[in-house]
Amino acid sequence: MTIAADRQRFARTALSFVAEPGDLTLGALLRACGPVEAFAAICDGRPPESVVALGRGGIPGLSRAFERWAARLGAVPTESRLAAWESAGIRILCPGDPEWPTQLDVLADARPLVLWLRGSTDLRFACLRSVSVVGARAATSYGEHVATEMAAALAERGFCIVSGGAYGIDSRAHLGALGADGVTVAVLASGLSYGYPRGHHELFTAIAGQGVMVSEWPPDRAPTRPGFLVRNRVIAALSCGTVVVEAALRSGALSTARHARDLCRPLMAVPGPVTSEMSQGCHEIIREWGAVCVTRAQDVIEHVSPVGEGLGARRCGPVYPRDSLDQVSRAVLEAVPARAGGGPAAIAAAAGVDLDTAIRCLGALAAAGFVERCARGWRVRKNAGHAPALPPDRTGTAGH
Amino acid sequence: MTIAADRQRFARTALSFVAEPGDLTLGALLRACGPVEAFAAICDGRPPESVVALGRGGIPGLSRAFERWAARLGAVPTESRLAAWESAGIRILCPGDPEWPTQLDVLADARPLVLWLRGSTDLRFACLRSVSVVGARAATSYGEHVATEMAAALAERGFCIVSGGAYGIDSRAHLGALGADGVTVAVLASGLSYGYPRGHHELFTAIAGQGVMVSEWPPDRAPTRPGFLVRNRVIAALSCGTVVVEAALRSGALSTARHARDLCRPLMAVPGPVTSEMSQGCHEIIREWGAVCVTRAQDVIEHVSPVGEGLGARRCGPVYPRDSLDQVSRAVLEAVPARAGGGPAAIAAAAGVDLDTAIRCLGALAAAGFVERCARGWRVRKNAGHAPALPPDRTGTAGH
Repeated sequence: MTIAADRQRFARTALSFVAEPGDLTLGALLRACGPVEAFAAICDGRPPESVVALGRGGIPGLSRAFERWAARLGAVPTESRLAAWESAGIRILCPGDPEWPTQLDVLADARPLVLWLRGSTDLRFACLRSVSVVGARAATSYGEHVATEMAAALAERGFCIVSGGAYGIDSRAHLGALGADGVTVAVLASGLSYGYPRGHHELFTAIAGQGVMVSEWPPDRAPTRPGFLVRNRVIAALSCGTVVVEAALRSGALSTARHARDLCRPLMAVPGPVTSEMSQGCHEIIREWGAVCVTRAQDVIEHVSPVGEGLGARRCGPVYPRDSLDQVSRAVLEAVPARAGGGPAAIAAAAGVDLDTAIRCLGALAAAGFVERCARGWRVRKNAGHAPALPPDRTGTAGH
Repeated sequence: MTIAADRQRFARTALSFVAEPGDLTLGALLRACGPVEAFAAICDGRPPESVVALGRGGIPGLSRAFERWAARLGAVPTESRLAAWESAGIRILCPGDPEWPTQLDVLADARPLVLWLRGSTDLRFACLRSVSVVGARAATSYGEHVATEMAAALAERGFCIVSGGAYGIDSRAHLGALGADGVTVAVLASGLSYGYPRGHHELFTAIAGQGVMVSEWPPDRAPTRPGFLVRNRVIAALSCGTVVVEAALRSGALSTARHARDLCRPLMAVPGPVTSEMSQGCHEIIREWGAVCVTRAQDVIEHVSPVGEGLGARRCGPVYPRDSLDQVSRAVLEAVPARAGGGPAAIAAAAGVDLDTAIRCLGALAAAGFVERCARGWRVRKNAGHAPALPPDRTGTAGH
């Protein structure tokens, strides 16, 4: 690594302690002068000359932001503290690193300064073929079932499952992927050592073993309420598409959906009972935002794959034996009264064929098990249209 | 009524006995020469000269159709039989009658020859503000619940409910409208005296009393399988929009949906559990045909109403007390550690405000019940964000 890259890496790491992720003012500053100059200026307590020289065309809110950042300079850790985290298995990923997921660059000024990672999986590679599966913490058993099944089926098809590590849908998505021996990525809104929610310690250990844990926050940072919303842009930007499994109308999962929509990434939602509050958010984004209604992994794969790839068999209903009849036989069959039965002349008239044709067809239909004789002539055999297709020579063997 | 109109009415009535509804060849013939000449030609057994003269530009399949129609001439009833139906409360509606629902004219050559009606309600007027609510016969209790509630709510808002009188969703839609003292229209695939399904005799009597029963078939005609599909175009064309409540992938309700789509009428579907076969057809048409995902009557009303009319309140989640805080107070509140608590200096740094501001805000937040003192300084009060907003002077009265 060159010395310049090392200085940039240190500056970005330090900045991740003084600014909150998603700080657009810092993003604009970095665009203007890069991380090394920006961090030096914050230490100096005043914007760099090159940025001040921009005058009125400069960055709005910069002086107030400098106060904010300067107030947190004490949080920048010592080298030994950084080393301690490193020996605990946490690594820092910066833009420009080979493992950096360049799809995050679409976030522009809101692009993460750095990502803190734990886990041996290559984040960039994993996310090249990935789907975010997110949803409510207060999920129903229906939502948890669907999230698990869908994540497992996607993982089996080689998709990495990205989610937020939360209770409810998120954890089921991770577990579904893990259970299918797939790769999964958890993007936390707390530091990785803090590991929020705490109750998911074991889950996070499993994810680090089979996938990768990701956070924009320094390892010991506790989550804050706005942090969850800020984190959601990373979940949306990392993956090839976002699926909302269950979400109430005011759910954090909808913020992930909004980011996916605003980034023009495929947005999908799983429908559910209209009587369930936890599906209201899904129905809302299907109706109002044009989220695609997905009911199984195959739907998701078709929607996130390039045109012409990932296409599966179309859904279709059962094929009935009657589907294979020729047009005239079908017309005759359809003219046979279902229950009461009727004579050949009436059937011929109803079918619009002559009597000979009707009689010939009725004989063939009887041989194939579609109709049977009765007191009034011919009637439809019960369930004839739904029975599995039997070749004529097997007809009637049920009584043997 | 003029003699010409009377002859036309008789010819149309007679034709409704010799041809099946939806017969496009007859539709084309009627367009070419009108019902009186067409019926006379069928009685003569050969196409009218005026149509034959069209030559190769004429109507395809006409000679075969003439054979088909001639074979059924014996079904044309006597005057006394027609009079008997009339005295049983059944009336015949023809295009051009004041009660004729002109929205059916969009069906072009497939427009009904006549409609047989029972019930005192004016069909045309009822359908000016109407919604078709259709779905599977083998409905689930979920689908039946939603159909009943939605039809009742639409009826209460003055919408006539159109459906097919079948078991399952159809009957619930009718019953929902009847229960709300609304108007409902049942379009049968059998004749009105035959009244299929027979088990709905009481329902049909109730619909005739509070709405209107409709059929294209002569009163004593039994239903045929293709007749249901043909009938569905009338359900779609009569109403301002079609809602599919539950439908398996190969369901007759999807044929109604297809007609609504092909007629460019608003098409809607109610989502359900992805684990339910009976919702698969609904999800399919939401995803593949662009049917609008509707979850309540208000969604339906918005979608079938002219732009700007029928708009209701937007769905929204709960409004929390924290929503009313100013930006700085919110930043401070969000910086307060939820459980462990923290000192004012750390909170000030995390919020990016100076210590004085942090202390002032913490005091105000405590007074409003958002935060409380603890061993380590300040922490968030449990459920503070979810409690109903209390004015500051009410805070703390819970212990009185």
